[in-house]
Amino acid sequence: MSRDATRIGALEARIGEEVLLEGWLYNRRSSGKLEFLLVRDGSGTVQCVAAKAELPGDVFARCSTVTQESSVRVRGLVRADKRAPSGVELTLRDLEILSPSHEYPITPKEHGPDFLLNHRHLWIRSQQQHAILRIRHTLVQACRNWLDEEGFTLADAPIFTPSACEGTTTLFETEYFGEKAYLTQSGQLYNEATAMAFGKSYCFGPTFRAEKSKTRRHLIEFWMVEPEVAFAALEDVMRLIERFIEGIVGRVLAARRVELQILGRDLAALERVKAPFPRLSYEEAARTLRERGLPFEWGTDFGGTDETVLTEGYDRPFFVHRFPAAVKAFYMKRDPLDERLSLSCDLLAPEGYGEIVGGGEREDDLERLVERIGEHRLPQEAFEWYLDLRRYGSVPHSGFGMGIERALSWIAGIEHVRETIPFPRMLNRLKP
Amino acid sequence: MSRDATRIGALEARIGEEVLLEGWLYNRRSSGKLEFLLVRDGSGTVQCVAAKAELPGDVFARCSTVTQESSVRVRGLVRADKRAPSGVELTLRDLEILSPSHEYPITPKEHGPDFLLNHRHLWIRSQQQHAILRIRHTLVQACRNWLDEEGFTLADAPIFTPSACEGTTTLFETEYFGEKAYLTQSGQLYNEATAMAFGKSYCFGPTFRAEKSKTRRHLIEFWMVEPEVAFAALEDVMRLIERFIEGIVGRVLAARRVELQILGRDLAALERVKAPFPRLSYEEAARTLRERGLPFEWGTDFGGTDETVLTEGYDRPFFVHRFPAAVKAFYMKRDPLDERLSLSCDLLAPEGYGEIVGGGEREDDLERLVERIGEHRLPQEAFEWYLDLRRYGSVPHSGFGMGIERALSWIAGIEHVRETIPFPRMLNRLKP
Repeated sequence: MSRDATRIGALEARIGEEVLLEGWLYNRRSSGKLEFLLVRDGSGTVQCVAAKAELPGDVFARCSTVTQESSVRVRGLVRADKRAPSGVELTLRDLEILSPSHEYPITPKEHGPDFLLNHRHLWIRSQQQHAILRIRHTLVQACRNWLDEEGFTLADAPIFTPSACEGTTTLFETEYFGEKAYLTQSGQLYNEATAMAFGKSYCFGPTFRAEKSKTRRHLIEFWMVEPEVAFAALEDVMRLIERFIEGIVGRVLAARRVELQILGRDLAALERVKAPFPRLSYEEAARTLRERGLPFEWGTDFGGTDETVLTEGYDRPFFVHRFPAAVKAFYMKRDPLDERLSLSCDLLAPEGYGEIVGGGEREDDLERLVERIGEHRLPQEAFEWYLDLRRYGSVPHSGFGMGIERALSWIAGIEHVRETIPFPRMLNRLKP
Repeated sequence: MSRDATRIGALEARIGEEVLLEGWLYNRRSSGKLEFLLVRDGSGTVQCVAAKAELPGDVFARCSTVTQESSVRVRGLVRADKRAPSGVELTLRDLEILSPSHEYPITPKEHGPDFLLNHRHLWIRSQQQHAILRIRHTLVQACRNWLDEEGFTLADAPIFTPSACEGTTTLFETEYFGEKAYLTQSGQLYNEATAMAFGKSYCFGPTFRAEKSKTRRHLIEFWMVEPEVAFAALEDVMRLIERFIEGIVGRVLAARRVELQILGRDLAALERVKAPFPRLSYEEAARTLRERGLPFEWGTDFGGTDETVLTEGYDRPFFVHRFPAAVKAFYMKRDPLDERLSLSCDLLAPEGYGEIVGGGEREDDLERLVERIGEHRLPQEAFEWYLDLRRYGSVPHSGFGMGIERALSWIAGIEHVRETIPFPRMLNRLKP
């Protein structure tokens, strides 16, 4: 930004002054004698009013012809305007067109999702997408700050991993100097190592699933935050999850109310997100589904429809805990009260959104973990380093993972996760 | 952590009280009648003193036999102790061994780097590694917070990219549902799109280079923070870089003084990191190298030795700017005063560390950019979306990228970047 330019987000402090803005023309309305230019610069949008009677002819001519998304420099007087979302309006005194924009492809008319995704590099300039991504930024910030304030240490998990933890069918593979490497699906195992070093740790990075799913809840590349806590049991991690969710939703509400309103989000639904959250055992959830007439079988995992039906009974996030061990990963600790079950939990978001968090307590006994690795037909040699965590000062420990895009989809009230990340990667979608 | 346990980092507020600690035995010294147990829990380390005369026989027996890295629960009285780094000591009243650790592989004796890297999952528990990774956390936090406070919007760049920007030789390739995808080497091009949407944006994620380099400055997988600013010229971005570096170094110094001291870092060297930084044109740098007897040829890039020699003249970071266009990427804007040169800059860290930041102004003219793409023999079709940024409201814009591991290596005074990331990925090093 030029040193003498003012950001639109800071205009309210400059009422009565003449300022220079640098940005792009978002929209223009005309009434013959007046031109209303809506200018955006990434920090906000402001209406600039150009009056024919008060401007030199060439300036007004530029005002009445400047096209959508042309880059512009605007000089004008800042006036308070209570009707404006930004609280101010500009009386335009000069307009310079830096670089014109001819036939900008995204117009106020309706476009199909493929067209918009092909133009994602421009679509992110649109008001709604802009609002979603600013909320995303605040959500990421909130997750990190909340964990930092709680004494967690960030420890980035590696993206390249040597072993295929749970089958290779959904893994991306690459050649790594003569070896095979796989792209991470979760930092989980590494977090257990860092939790033993830092007590409380988390990783926060991209993860990858080569799933051929084409639903509104699937991305091939998505970001996860995964905290892990030494000396924590399932009960402790469920309390951590509910405090975390209450905390991050509260911070997003406080900082991004305007953007949530642009998206038409029901703010009352977010204001209800207060711990403690309802808790439903897997047994109870299975019974509920059967009572509602769904053909749900004990021992299976919930499908999208099951989750949607379960959320109908709740107006805030709720837990389902103690899933059958068979549907969870090998490292989940068994429930000492019922060996068929695992000390696991999912958090489901209401309003039909479903699972946003998965967590649980990890098996901390060396012999039992070796047994599980065998049962899952995994190569023990690849897990020797992980078994070391049980050989040298094992402790009870638990953790969870939250997918940022699914969480954001719920918080911002977005139908499809493809709008919750700057450049979505989906089945058949690798561009731009 | 159990609900009734206290974290060691919070002990100073509990002087005079009896507390319960949960952690691991870091070290033990014995004087016959007294056992000195050094206990760590990830938040800190505290010495617990067990006196034979004051403890039941079985408790003292456990204290005198507990092994390195066993997990323990300790009950004791907190006493102020000015000699202790934590400011406190514990009079031990009870010790419970949760899970013993037999023959912990990392002992106080010397180990070779391969042995330590093979045991990275345990090595991170050691005092020095622990200190480095806590500084890393603070550095990441400082980068993000500084940019957030300056009005930047986080916009994560994708990891999977469709086109091989600058040759495929250093790219990792993967099969993406029948297409080829490449792992990102930089979010640069995507940041230019997000800067046009947000004015100021940044991405911060892992990047990948399949380089067969085995130096102390190379990792295969490393993290980069890359800010981009619309309406900014080279001069603006150089000012941004120096304010950013001063800001993040200041925050690390303020929050991690103890850890820097553990590493023996010269704090005065960091305290000198105040903007503005010295600026050296490429021409001047080339002349300096030749004057010092190096066979440096105009038109080439600096090698590791060149950088080390250049840093000898400076006691703080310094810029080299306006590199020959031929050694920089196709998107760098040419210097209008000398078409052979680009409007680029590198920031070099002193004390022999060399380049930690690379940045510059981007070509914003459509025709010239198309020309460059042709000159570099790149497939224009793959860059049509990127060219759109010049078709629809192009503006001058600039940005930079900083590799976290190289920056941390300098800030923490670490010889080899392999110690600056929890699980390093190097040539022939994909484990654990």
